[in-house]
Amino acid sequence: MSRWEFTLLLAAAAFLAAYAVPILDTGLAPAERHLCNAVEWLTWGLFVFDYVVEFRKSNNKRKWMIRHIVDFAALILPMLRPLRLLRIVPMLRVLNRMTVASLRGRVAAYIVATTFLVGFTASLTCLDVERYAPGSNIHTFGDSAWWTIATMTTVGYGDHYPVTTEGRFIGAALMISGIALLGTVTATLASWITEQVERDDDRLLSEIRSLRQDIAKLQRQQANSR
Amino acid sequence: MSRWEFTLLLAAAAFLAAYAVPILDTGLAPAERHLCNAVEWLTWGLFVFDYVVEFRKSNNKRKWMIRHIVDFAALILPMLRPLRLLRIVPMLRVLNRMTVASLRGRVAAYIVATTFLVGFTASLTCLDVERYAPGSNIHTFGDSAWWTIATMTTVGYGDHYPVTTEGRFIGAALMISGIALLGTVTATLASWITEQVERDDDRLLSEIRSLRQDIAKLQRQQANSR
Amino acid sequence: MSRWEFTLLLAAAAFLAAYAVPILDTGLAPAERHLCNAVEWLTWGLFVFDYVVEFRKSNNKRKWMIRHIVDFAALILPMLRPLRLLRIVPMLRVLNRMTVASLRGRVAAYIVATTFLVGFTASLTCLDVERYAPGSNIHTFGDSAWWTIATMTTVGYGDHYPVTTEGRFIGAALMISGIALLGTVTATLASWITEQVERDDDRLLSEIRSLRQDIAKLQRQQANSR
Amino acid sequence: MSRWEFTLLLAAAAFLAAYAVPILDTGLAPAERHLCNAVEWLTWGLFVFDYVVEFRKSNNKRKWMIRHIVDFAALILPMLRPLRLLRIVPMLRVLNRMTVASLRGRVAAYIVATTFLVGFTASLTCLDVERYAPGSNIHTFGDSAWWTIATMTTVGYGDHYPVTTEGRFIGAALMISGIALLGTVTATLASWITEQVERDDDRLLSEIRSLRQDIAKLQRQQANSR
Repeated sequence: MSRWEFTLLLAAAAFLAAYAVPILDTGLAPAERHLCNAVEWLTWGLFVFDYVVEFRKSNNKRKWMIRHIVDFAALILPMLRPLRLLRIVPMLRVLNRMTVASLRGRVAAYIVATTFLVGFTASLTCLDVERYAPGSNIHTFGDSAWWTIATMTTVGYGDHYPVTTEGRFIGAALMISGIALLGTVTATLASWITEQVERDDDRLLSEIRSLRQDIAKLQRQQANSR
Repeated sequence: MSRWEFTLLLAAAAFLAAYAVPILDTGLAPAERHLCNAVEWLTWGLFVFDYVVEFRKSNNKRKWMIRHIVDFAALILPMLRPLRLLRIVPMLRVLNRMTVASLRGRVAAYIVATTFLVGFTASLTCLDVERYAPGSNIHTFGDSAWWTIATMTTVGYGDHYPVTTEGRFIGAALMISGIALLGTVTATLASWITEQVERDDDRLLSEIRSLRQDIAKLQRQQANSR
Repeated sequence: MSRWEFTLLLAAAAFLAAYAVPILDTGLAPAERHLCNAVEWLTWGLFVFDYVVEFRKSNNKRKWMIRHIVDFAALILPMLRPLRLLRIVPMLRVLNRMTVASLRGRVAAYIVATTFLVGFTASLTCLDVERYAPGSNIHTFGDSAWWTIATMTTVGYGDHYPVTTEGRFIGAALMISGIALLGTVTATLASWITEQVERDDDRLLSEIRSLRQDIAKLQRQQANSR
Repeated sequence: MSRWEFTLLLAAAAFLAAYAVPILDTGLAPAERHLCNAVEWLTWGLFVFDYVVEFRKSNNKRKWMIRHIVDFAALILPMLRPLRLLRIVPMLRVLNRMTVASLRGRVAAYIVATTFLVGFTASLTCLDVERYAPGSNIHTFGDSAWWTIATMTTVGYGDHYPVTTEGRFIGAALMISGIALLGTVTATLASWITEQVERDDDRLLSEIRSLRQDIAKLQRQQANSR
C-alpha cells in the first residue's frame, strides 16, 4: 500500500465520520454541522484529485475515460443531495486497488469490507430520510441498523421498513447487495470445497511426470545403443 | 441483430408501454384506452407473424411444432385477460435469440433483462388486480414495485402483500423467479471464481506439450541413427 | 417402470386424494368420510406389502433391515394421527426408484416432484391443524398454500403463519426443505454452467491422443529400421 | 475419539443442560439455581484446563498463542454475563477436533452439529433477554425456537422478533449463521453434483495409462533389437 493510498483510506474514514456524526447526533451546533460538511467536501476533493491524477497518467485518454465512466459518475452524482450515498463508490475503488495474494482471499476481504461499508452508509442514510417521515417506523440508529442487516441477509421481518421513496431505493439497493453477498459467499465456499475434494488433477500431473521420465530413459537407452 | 429482430424489439417496447400506461394512469380518456389496446393487439400480431414465419421455415413441421409448444401456448393463452402477463414470454424469446459472445456474458445479460421484464410486468399486473380489491394494501405503483423487489430477492417484509387469488399467483411466480435468479447469480459467480482459481489444467497442458517435444526429439535422434 | 411400480404410483395418487378431500370439503357426509379413511388405510397397506416383499427378496435380512430403518419408521409412525404427514415418505421412495438417464435430469425431476408433494401435503396438514385453532390466521386452502410457497422459497411475508405447535413443526420442515431446494437448484445450475464453460479437458484429451499417434509412428519407424 | 475428548463432550452436554434448565423452568428453587450455576462454572473450568494443557504441549508458545487468540477470547469473554453465549465456541472446537473420513462428510456433520448448537443456545439466550422486556413478543421457548429457525433459514415472518439490543445482536449472529449455513449446504451439494457429473478426468487418466504401456512396449522392442 503506497503512502497516497493510505491517505485516501484516511480520507474515506474521515468522510464516513463526517457523514455519520450529524445524522447520529441531532443536537449538533451549527458550527459543528458546518465543520462536518467541510470535511465531507474536502475528502470528496481528494477523490476528485486522485481521479484527475490517474487520468493524466493514462496513455490513451479516450479509452481511459470510457473505462472509468462509472468512477466519473460516482464523483459527480453525489453533488446532488439525495445521491450523497454514492460517495462510497470511490472508497470501494480504493479498497479494490489494494492487492491481496490469493484470489479467494481477496474476494473474502472484499466481501467483508464492502458489506460493512454499504451496510453502514445505508443505515445512516435510511435513518436520515425516514426519521421524521409520516408513518415511519425507523426512528433510531438501532432500528435502522437492525433493518439493514435483516434486509441484506434477505430475512426481512417487516417489523421495521422504509416508507419514503428514497428509503425504498436504499432498501432495493440493499436487497440486491444481499443477493450478491449471498451468491459470493456461496460461490467462494463452493470453489474452496471443490478444490479440496478435487485432487485428481494432481494424480494426473504425477502420471505425466513419470511418463516423461520413461521417455528420458528411452532416449538414454538409444544414445547408448548407437 | 437483424432488422427483423430489431423490429420485434421495438414491438416489445411498444407493447410494454401500451400495457403500462392504462394501469399507471387511471384517468385515461376512453379513446386513449382504445389506442393502447390496439397497440397491444398489433404487437401481439407481430409476434404471431414471427411464429408463423419461423414455422414455415422449419424442415420437419411436426418436430418444430412439438419443440415450440411453449411458444404456441404463450401466444394463445394471453387472449384470456387474466393471462395477459404471459405476453412477455415471446419477448424473452427474442432476447434469447440475440447471441452474445461468451456463455457467461449471455447468462449475465439474460438475468438482468429477464429480471427487469418479469419484475416490471408483475408490478403492473399486481397493481391492476390489487388496487381496488377489498382489504388490499397495494394501491400505488410504488407499493407494487417495492413488493415485487422484496419478493424476488426473497426478503418478504410483509408490509405489502397481495390478497386476491390472481395477485397470489403472480406472487408465487415471482418467488420462483427469485429462487431461479438467486441460483443463477450464485452459479455464474461460482463458475467464474472456479475458473480463476483452477489454473492447474494449464499446467497439465504445458506438461503434455513439452512431452510431445521430447518425443519429436526422439524421432529425430532415431532418424539420424539409421 | 414395472406394472407394480405403476400400481404403487396409482396408490400414492389415491392416498393423496383420500387425504385431501376430507380436509378441503368440511361438509362431507360421515359415509364419505369413512370411505376416504378406508382408502387411506388400503393404500398404506399396499406400501406395507411392498416393504414386506422387498424384505423377503433381500439376501442379508439384517443388513437390509438396518439400511431401510427410515422406510420402516415412515410406515409405522403415520399410524399416530399427528404424524400422518410422514405417509408421503414411501411415495417419495417410489419416485426415487424410477430411473431417469442423466444424473442432472434425475436431480431436476426429483426437485420438482418432491417440492410439489411436500408442499401439497404440508398445505393440507397445516390447514387441518390451524383452521379452528384460537388466534389462527390460516382458514382456507388458499391461505395455507400461499403460506407454504412463501415459506419454501424463504420469502416469509408473515401475513399468514402457524400458531399451533404442530403447525410450527410443519413450518420448520418446510423451511429446511426450502433451504435444501434452493441449494439443489443452485448447485445443479452451477454444475451445468461449469460444464459448459470448462471445455479444457477436451483440449487435453485431444493433445494426449495426438501424442499417442506420435508414439505409434515411432514404433513403426523402429520396426522398419530393424 | 480419545477418553479426554469424550469427557469434554460430556462437559459440553452438562453445560448445555445447566444453561437451559434455569431459563426454561422459571420456578426453580434458589438451591437448584445455584447448582446449575456451579455446573456451568465447573464445565467452563474443564475447557480452561484443556486450553492450558494444549498450550503447554505446543512447541512455539508465542505462535500457538497468536493462532488460538479466538479460543482465548471465547474462554475469557463469557465471564461477562451478556456474553455467556460465547461458551459454545469451545464446544464447537471440540466437535471440530473429532475427525471424520471424507472432507464432505465432515462438512455435513459439522453443519448439522453447529446449526443445532448455535440455534439451541441462541433460542435460550434470546428467551432469557426478551421474556420480560417491555413490548416484547417472545415469551415462551416455543416462540423463541420458532423465531430462531425462521431467522436461520432467512424466512423471517416477523410474527416474533427481538426488541432489546441484546436480542438483536443474537438475531444478527443468527442471520449471518443462516447465510453461512445456506452457502455451505449449497456449496457441498454443488461439489457433490460436480463430482458425479465430471468423470472426464478418469477418461484422461486411462488414456495416459495406456500411453505409458505403449512406451514400455517401445522400450522392450528396442532392448530386443539391440
